[in-house]
Amino acid sequence: MIEVGPNSYGKSAIRLVKVVRSETPHRVRDLTIGIALEGDFAASYRDGDNSAVIATDTMKNTCYALAGEHLTGAIEDFAAVLADHFAEAPQVDIARVSIREHAWRPIGASPDAFGRDGSETRVARVARGRGGRSVDSGVEDLVLMKTTRSAFAGFPRDRFTTLPETDDRIMATKVSATWRYAGAVAIDHDASFASVRSTLLEVFAEHHSVSVQASIWVIGKAILERNPEVESISMSLPNLHHWTVDLSGFGIENDREVYVSTTEPHGVIEATIRRGDAPP
Amino acid sequence: MIEVGPNSYGKSAIRLVKVVRSETPHRVRDLTIGIALEGDFAASYRDGDNSAVIATDTMKNTCYALAGEHLTGAIEDFAAVLADHFAEAPQVDIARVSIREHAWRPIGASPDAFGRDGSETRVARVARGRGGRSVDSGVEDLVLMKTTRSAFAGFPRDRFTTLPETDDRIMATKVSATWRYAGAVAIDHDASFASVRSTLLEVFAEHHSVSVQASIWVIGKAILERNPEVESISMSLPNLHHWTVDLSGFGIENDREVYVSTTEPHGVIEATIRRGDAPP
Amino acid sequence: MIEVGPNSYGKSAIRLVKVVRSETPHRVRDLTIGIALEGDFAASYRDGDNSAVIATDTMKNTCYALAGEHLTGAIEDFAAVLADHFAEAPQVDIARVSIREHAWRPIGASPDAFGRDGSETRVARVARGRGGRSVDSGVEDLVLMKTTRSAFAGFPRDRFTTLPETDDRIMATKVSATWRYAGAVAIDHDASFASVRSTLLEVFAEHHSVSVQASIWVIGKAILERNPEVESISMSLPNLHHWTVDLSGFGIENDREVYVSTTEPHGVIEATIRRGDAPP
Amino acid sequence: MIEVGPNSYGKSAIRLVKVVRSETPHRVRDLTIGIALEGDFAASYRDGDNSAVIATDTMKNTCYALAGEHLTGAIEDFAAVLADHFAEAPQVDIARVSIREHAWRPIGASPDAFGRDGSETRVARVARGRGGRSVDSGVEDLVLMKTTRSAFAGFPRDRFTTLPETDDRIMATKVSATWRYAGAVAIDHDASFASVRSTLLEVFAEHHSVSVQASIWVIGKAILERNPEVESISMSLPNLHHWTVDLSGFGIENDREVYVSTTEPHGVIEATIRRGDAPP
Repeated sequence: MIEVGPNSYGKSAIRLVKVVRSETPHRVRDLTIGIALEGDFAASYRDGDNSAVIATDTMKNTCYALAGEHLTGAIEDFAAVLADHFAEAPQVDIARVSIREHAWRPIGASPDAFGRDGSETRVARVARGRGGRSVDSGVEDLVLMKTTRSAFAGFPRDRFTTLPETDDRIMATKVSATWRYAGAVAIDHDASFASVRSTLLEVFAEHHSVSVQASIWVIGKAILERNPEVESISMSLPNLHHWTVDLSGFGIENDREVYVSTTEPHGVIEATIRRGDAPP
Repeated sequence: MIEVGPNSYGKSAIRLVKVVRSETPHRVRDLTIGIALEGDFAASYRDGDNSAVIATDTMKNTCYALAGEHLTGAIEDFAAVLADHFAEAPQVDIARVSIREHAWRPIGASPDAFGRDGSETRVARVARGRGGRSVDSGVEDLVLMKTTRSAFAGFPRDRFTTLPETDDRIMATKVSATWRYAGAVAIDHDASFASVRSTLLEVFAEHHSVSVQASIWVIGKAILERNPEVESISMSLPNLHHWTVDLSGFGIENDREVYVSTTEPHGVIEATIRRGDAPP
Repeated sequence: MIEVGPNSYGKSAIRLVKVVRSETPHRVRDLTIGIALEGDFAASYRDGDNSAVIATDTMKNTCYALAGEHLTGAIEDFAAVLADHFAEAPQVDIARVSIREHAWRPIGASPDAFGRDGSETRVARVARGRGGRSVDSGVEDLVLMKTTRSAFAGFPRDRFTTLPETDDRIMATKVSATWRYAGAVAIDHDASFASVRSTLLEVFAEHHSVSVQASIWVIGKAILERNPEVESISMSLPNLHHWTVDLSGFGIENDREVYVSTTEPHGVIEATIRRGDAPP
Repeated sequence: MIEVGPNSYGKSAIRLVKVVRSETPHRVRDLTIGIALEGDFAASYRDGDNSAVIATDTMKNTCYALAGEHLTGAIEDFAAVLADHFAEAPQVDIARVSIREHAWRPIGASPDAFGRDGSETRVARVARGRGGRSVDSGVEDLVLMKTTRSAFAGFPRDRFTTLPETDDRIMATKVSATWRYAGAVAIDHDASFASVRSTLLEVFAEHHSVSVQASIWVIGKAILERNPEVESISMSLPNLHHWTVDLSGFGIENDREVYVSTTEPHGVIEATIRRGDAPP
């Protein structure tokens, strides 16, 4: 007895740009959208019956068609409109919409010229099921470094351990963080995003790190404390190692000055920090 | 009350090459390894207590140290050795090891010259917990195309639907598939991998596709039928659209001959096909 | 009669980070360095004679060894130190050094926390030959958009032309620009870079574009006019097309509001703008 | 006096797939095409006069329009058709066409199912000027390794040299090679490509390398000796270092068995091997 287990389908990498010309300067919205549906689709697998299969091409068209009227505020709100739209179909149990927004900043005081800010990507993920919506906001591609006040010591040593303890290393990472809002509240997503982001940066800058794990805790705790609408935050922090170069053989002292920056291999530390009453 | 929720840490992108010189031709094993541990690590977050935190640098060293003696057969077996090693630490609940193997083929009859086969990547994922091990095998980066015998029709049409029905389109995809072995059996992983892979290719080639969903079902069902050791298989198939170019304005007929190949946007169809008695 | 023609060798992708701790905030220098040598190396090819072949590993070591003392100002100046160093070897005719600098900005008023500015990359290329040095500065990865005041009309139409003329399109591009300094002058490279960059952005923002070609001219001319130390500037501007989505079939008017952003295919327009007395 | 210097424009990343259905199995041609024109275009920069600017969109259309009739043999031949087409316009001095072909292989004996061979990319570059055509063929993305019979010794040692001499190292590289055909001869490009490629692989496998430079010479010389139609060959070979891991601290001997594979930094060795009478 063979059966269809968990399944999902949709459209990814829908590239949509909207120019809001009613403002000065114009506003550029540059989105990459993904749609995924779960529901009563087993027959499309098992019987080749497409009568329930909303074409992924239709999903794409829908994004473009609804952007004019509905992409007016935060990406979380547009994602909710799209998720609600797709969840209307009776065969759909859950409609998931993810949106990544690529930031453009006006150049000087120009009304119509913009530069792409490649330093971070804002993300939103909305899931609409029969019981309601969940909304996650987040940020990706945020590359950060602490040049001091970062340590790593007191870890266990076994026969394969060679890493020396250090009380002063470079900590470099590329932050991916998503946080979930408590369901019942109406959220101003732009304001909340700005608040979480600035807390993240401020605490990253201020704290003394004894490990990447401890940094996640300190940052996540502060975000939850300062943003009551946030229920939990998940962070994934690669540890992008910077190794001090040994120049002593050349008669050169290198006291935390010259490093080799590496990407392979790298540590990965991932955790969710949450309120004690958060659902699992 | 703020707490540490689910968390995991480890090392990614460990690049390891082993040359087996005792065979003719030599054998090149080219692996990218990832290690992730879950367990009693909350204190490392909350209290900055590193006494349980096996350094990710130690994880890397361990891979290189154990490769000589233990990387002798399938990557599933080496992953199991690594997972068992890390699961020995009392603070570890689950040790996850993923290995991607990059294939090298001998050039002609040469004993010591090889070409990298960039056409696919073999993957293994082993999770070792207190209750035992789970083993997943898989393949990635396998790009396939059907030039005919692929259709898509009978899907619902709403006001945003413009896609015409077709009984003859190109189907192109980049297969990611992972399958799970039933736990109790001793598996010859190289033999099983070869069997699943050849079933996948054979059925892909032979079947008439009425949708990507139906293809997943037909392929997955055949794999389960022919490989009793496989409990379930999960496939993720992007639909890499090839659009027929309209050349009629130039007085040129284009009967399924010239296409524009695209990557953005693309469909994504994902499903698990499993035995009816598979655990959820 | 078979011979060795033009040849060059060196080291690429040398990743070097220097932390200047004597300033507050610290200063992070994050460089990717490439070295290439040309000269009397034919014997290394033809006769397998390595006696002139400075190891590329030595090149790498040299970058790290000299960074402490010599990476104190602009990357152009450090590139010159490295190029001069390698050009000292008698077998070297030309030593080429390219440096890409990845920008890090302090977070708030923090003395030791930084965010990576992914929006642009500064580049320097120094070539040191027996006759002296050439110095090129540049910028890459600078993604710009004009939401109006961009047109394209008056182009020839043949039987394969379908593009309509337009007096209002989006112009989006990813600027790569390098400029060459007149040899004899002493240059403050940081000041000159800032001046060229701000001219580029300002003119991009202000001008009315009738084509990407015309934009290159207008921008390049202004840079040469305002920066007498610059001899010529070469720009490579992809035309990253944004197509207006036709929503009329859905009863939706789309007046330059919703676009599909594309990367394949894209235009590429490349030109050097120079003083009339510039050497070819 | 500011002027327009060297310039060029065109379309890149034109993705074209043609399915030849008259053969069994079908034949899949999967091309990425680039077009670039040089000529009398200064007015388009200086005066914003587009009357000579063949739209890059037209270039794209032309590729699709001509593929049906003219993409019947080697990519060199189709590139020549395209280059000749664009060179017909009086304002064009040189039309450059580059084509990269992505290989698809039939799956088993299937008439209509194919797998993408990601192991190499074939390239052709044709330049058509008033004086005739030049044709370059090439291969890219060909990743090769020698597990023994590769050495590097006898190189100069200065104060920054730490690399030990070795008579047995791994040599790994990703070959980019392009060769130019003597102009006057009619070439069977598929046959010539196959011959050059097999010589490259065979000599790579057979020779004892004393340096990457020497390997380029040995391979290039053999290609020129066995293929009289080839005038010169240019190779770019990164040296993708594989470092033996020092496991002695763990009591483990590692005799050329376990390596760490790296990509940053890497050597780059580039040279043209040519007949003595080749034009510069």
